[in-house]
Amino acid sequence: MKIGWIGTGVMGASMAGHVQAAGHDIYVYNRSKEKAAGLIEKGAVWCGGPGEVASASDAVFTIVGFPEDVEEVYFGHEGIFSSSAGCKTVVDMTTTKPSLAVRIAEAAGERGIDALDAPVSGGDIGARDGTLVIMVGGTREAMERMMPVFECLGSRITFMGGPGAGQHTKMCNQILVSGTMVSVCESLLYAARVGLDQQAVIDVIGKGAAGSWSINNLGPRIVKGDFATGFFVEHFIKDMGIALEEAETMGLSMPGLALVKQLYVAVKAQGHSRSGTQALYLALKAMSEKNGWET
Amino acid sequence: MKIGWIGTGVMGASMAGHVQAAGHDIYVYNRSKEKAAGLIEKGAVWCGGPGEVASASDAVFTIVGFPEDVEEVYFGHEGIFSSSAGCKTVVDMTTTKPSLAVRIAEAAGERGIDALDAPVSGGDIGARDGTLVIMVGGTREAMERMMPVFECLGSRITFMGGPGAGQHTKMCNQILVSGTMVSVCESLLYAARVGLDQQAVIDVIGKGAAGSWSINNLGPRIVKGDFATGFFVEHFIKDMGIALEEAETMGLSMPGLALVKQLYVAVKAQGHSRSGTQALYLALKAMSEKNGWET
Repeated sequence: MKIGWIGTGVMGASMAGHVQAAGHDIYVYNRSKEKAAGLIEKGAVWCGGPGEVASASDAVFTIVGFPEDVEEVYFGHEGIFSSSAGCKTVVDMTTTKPSLAVRIAEAAGERGIDALDAPVSGGDIGARDGTLVIMVGGTREAMERMMPVFECLGSRITFMGGPGAGQHTKMCNQILVSGTMVSVCESLLYAARVGLDQQAVIDVIGKGAAGSWSINNLGPRIVKGDFATGFFVEHFIKDMGIALEEAETMGLSMPGLALVKQLYVAVKAQGHSRSGTQALYLALKAMSEKNGWET
Repeated sequence: MKIGWIGTGVMGASMAGHVQAAGHDIYVYNRSKEKAAGLIEKGAVWCGGPGEVASASDAVFTIVGFPEDVEEVYFGHEGIFSSSAGCKTVVDMTTTKPSLAVRIAEAAGERGIDALDAPVSGGDIGARDGTLVIMVGGTREAMERMMPVFECLGSRITFMGGPGAGQHTKMCNQILVSGTMVSVCESLLYAARVGLDQQAVIDVIGKGAAGSWSINNLGPRIVKGDFATGFFVEHFIKDMGIALEEAETMGLSMPGLALVKQLYVAVKAQGHSRSGTQALYLALKAMSEKNGWET
């Protein structure tokens, strides 16, 4: 297939690389061209903008940063929907607003294009290894048609419902991560403060009813003082903001998520926008640090 | 060995049964005698109080409800320390205050007795199957001496440090559970509210970076409307209260844990003291219910 690919950041570059390696022709655009260099070297065709990508491709995949970037890529002056011909399917893999996914699906429908929202979990490692979890909203038919591409990217591809259902599922995922991260960090801070061996604590409590992916994978990074991303703090704040906004619109109170988001606002304020989400540990530590203890 | 056993509730009765089945002589006391009936039928000797248990045994194990119960069992009028002879080792397996564990160790030391604090995780199922995680504080020597008993009860027995270190590790465990539970419940509420299939969501998000024991084990119970314990809400509130008190004493702020404790106070207020911790879902649901939706 002729696959258009818009967005070649940490995630997108690896993902497009897998699609290319599977033998598909890639038509690529990214805000900074240098991040697409690896793909271009291997034969991807550089396009001047999203509209040009759409004209050249059978299907366009997008994975960019924030909802406003998605908005621009689809509805902007040079956007996908400004193109008069070309692609029959669009797939937004950015984590973005469910309501935006619905708007894209509607605008696509008016143009005879199928739209899928298909955000992922699994982070940079999942993208690199082609083992992402992909949560798909839209129609089953469009999903089936895109399976040859999805199967290059992920190990679990699940149809969740109509337009926006993929994004809503991703919101459930991010809500689930949020409280878990606070617990991981508070638990390890407590351990340090009382003089326990943090790694020994992880080894004991990570295997039982308190266990989680986060304590077993991010916990050891915290112990080693490794706060590199992983998953950017600023993207996590965006995701939690979307979930809170959606929930509030539906009249659903989320006190846990609201607190966690505020704590991450503090993490960002302390200069950790581009650190991994485990940097929450540093912000919580700083909060109690004037009491004169060090971990 | 002659083993004294004080506390034959949901956990204690199963645990003492394993020790008995391994061939040890059991000397038992419990506030309500009928809960010790199964052990007595199989040959355990009923004693009139903790002091009598201590006189008859080489080592006494205690697993009761709240710190004040532990206090009474050890320091009360008829308590273990009122006994003038008998046991050489005491092991408190109740989840209780680290500072109380230290006090017990000191009082024991004055009497030539070794004390261990050895709280567990794994709940009623772990107790029944003999697969508890046991976190031990005290001395390695005393722990080694008690291994024949511990090995009847648990699959992971770990020495964590001096007196109180077992309790502190258990606090880390409970802190870790706390935020995870809020996330589990908020995530599933969000899923229900937007009309996603909750079990399908668990199947997708429970396997990746958002995954935890709680979402994969308690999540499906929530979906089925099963809020039976598991682990009692009132005991979880007690544990979180201890952790918060210890943390505050050390000048350590725990905003996540504090919120979760307050939410569980609401769960209790709604009549769920003796429900499982997953009943948090019901309290959060009730919070937003007047908006006119049902899950």
